[in-house]
Amino acid sequence: MDIRAGLLNGDKRAAARLITMAENGDEEAVKIIREYYHLTGKARIIGITGPPGAGKSTVTDKLAKNLRLQGKKVGIIAVDPTSPFTGGAILGDRVRMTDLSTDPGVFIRSMGTRGALGGLSKAAHDAVRILDIYGMDYIFIETVGVGQSEVDIVKLADTVVMVMVPGLGDDIQAIKAGIMEIGDVFAVNKSDREGAEKTATEIEIMLDFNKSSDYRPSVVNIIARDNKNVDELIAAIDKHWEYLQKNNNFEERKKNSIRTEIISLINQYVITSIQRDSSKVSLIEDMVGNVYGKKIDPYSAAVEIFKDVSKINRNV
Amino acid sequence: MDIRAGLLNGDKRAAARLITMAENGDEEAVKIIREYYHLTGKARIIGITGPPGAGKSTVTDKLAKNLRLQGKKVGIIAVDPTSPFTGGAILGDRVRMTDLSTDPGVFIRSMGTRGALGGLSKAAHDAVRILDIYGMDYIFIETVGVGQSEVDIVKLADTVVMVMVPGLGDDIQAIKAGIMEIGDVFAVNKSDREGAEKTATEIEIMLDFNKSSDYRPSVVNIIARDNKNVDELIAAIDKHWEYLQKNNNFEERKKNSIRTEIISLINQYVITSIQRDSSKVSLIEDMVGNVYGKKIDPYSAAVEIFKDVSKINRNV
Repeated sequence: MDIRAGLLNGDKRAAARLITMAENGDEEAVKIIREYYHLTGKARIIGITGPPGAGKSTVTDKLAKNLRLQGKKVGIIAVDPTSPFTGGAILGDRVRMTDLSTDPGVFIRSMGTRGALGGLSKAAHDAVRILDIYGMDYIFIETVGVGQSEVDIVKLADTVVMVMVPGLGDDIQAIKAGIMEIGDVFAVNKSDREGAEKTATEIEIMLDFNKSSDYRPSVVNIIARDNKNVDELIAAIDKHWEYLQKNNNFEERKKNSIRTEIISLINQYVITSIQRDSSKVSLIEDMVGNVYGKKIDPYSAAVEIFKDVSKINRNV
Repeated sequence: MDIRAGLLNGDKRAAARLITMAENGDEEAVKIIREYYHLTGKARIIGITGPPGAGKSTVTDKLAKNLRLQGKKVGIIAVDPTSPFTGGAILGDRVRMTDLSTDPGVFIRSMGTRGALGGLSKAAHDAVRILDIYGMDYIFIETVGVGQSEVDIVKLADTVVMVMVPGLGDDIQAIKAGIMEIGDVFAVNKSDREGAEKTATEIEIMLDFNKSSDYRPSVVNIIARDNKNVDELIAAIDKHWEYLQKNNNFEERKKNSIRTEIISLINQYVITSIQRDSSKVSLIEDMVGNVYGKKIDPYSAAVEIFKDVSKINRNV
């Protein structure tokens, strides 16, 4: 398969193959993305996050379907960082083998952590870029949990949709989740459930207190399962997009995302370089043994290895 | 205050001050931990994790109270990685200013992310070590969410207690959470709620499928609020401890934790060194601008900076 030609000519298999290559750390994948990097930046990137059980997959699917009705091409990347050991995303893929996946204007991909430290965030970045080159109008990045790595992943989005749900345990527990600060749009899903109004009110109160942005996120009550108010949610996403177009908001956001990515790439290079160098691997193993045996403390051990880093960078 | 003397003589303020210093990246803190590193390894480290709303704080508090009745000294570190922007842990502290915090045999500390990349995991590691030196018999590390960073944090525990709760959205959603693979003990909290048996059964089924360990985790139904079955939960934790004492299980686990820590310390050193060097900071900012302007792709930008890394390591 000619991946380059396929990618530019809308061949789903080419995009899928390239994402797999990127996930596996294949250098050819990075080479191809670099070649077509100038074609990126046309897609709108939407992060979908929120607590487990909020119905994020359903929300994403309905957003995608409604955007398809508007003639937009949609990519979906479902990221599951909660599965560090197995590819926990497999089940997710199977469950979502629905009408969406047969639509040629929709590209769906699940991703789980596959060992590499910081690797999932990089793989997600790569996949977004590949789907951007591939010509998607909207790219959704959906995460499973709520945690730091999810924050890192959704930070690359232009707009972050925080999906909430009524009755998420204690009120404090919900408000405590400071992760809500990254939401640009709030969707209260399953809003036919008891407590939906209370949840929406709590979000509004939380937003009253958040002075870190001059943008006031919209709060939209939806029932994704019944496709209720999904168009309103799209309108709220569009409203945030219009805000980004003003002043330097968009540039600032993109630059923050680029900075985060560059720093995590540097970390990735350091670790990969160590892993590829057998003398470094055995140095680490020696140090692990020494720390375990209390012959050295972990800080000193890390400094010893870090001091060797100048020998590493020739291998990049 | 003489922190060293205080730390060794059971002065809570000394331990608290030292943890704050470690959180702030104060080098004196690392120096003190290094000095007393040989005193570590006596405490049993218990990770408490699980989805939001499962009642992890209550479970931790009740475990602590029951262990206090056995005459054990208990440290609690509540980690909230979901708050990357503000110190989201403040509220948690206030809520938990209960009878536990006035007990001289209990040390409670909340921690939120405070900016530094990978910093929270390091701060949590440091705090555990400080409380170990300080002489706690049990140290609980409790996380707020479920995500990769929580996984990294609880990985340093000897035993990970996964707190579940009935009715967590779709069954698939719960099972999909591959994070469950890190649980050594499962507590189904709020087990008087509808669906508790179903949840316990689902966990057992999931454990049937998990072949990655030769240890079969216990599943314990509890009602933490009413202190029901908390002693059974402690017995399940002890059972896992006994397993660790056999063969090389303990050594292997500790070494994995040390390896993870060393690698994240190396990453930390790389980033800190870059941040301290103004020429590196401006190189990054130039690269961010160039990537934004599509003059260079982020991979090449990161390599450019990484190639400079040999100049960095003299500053450690």
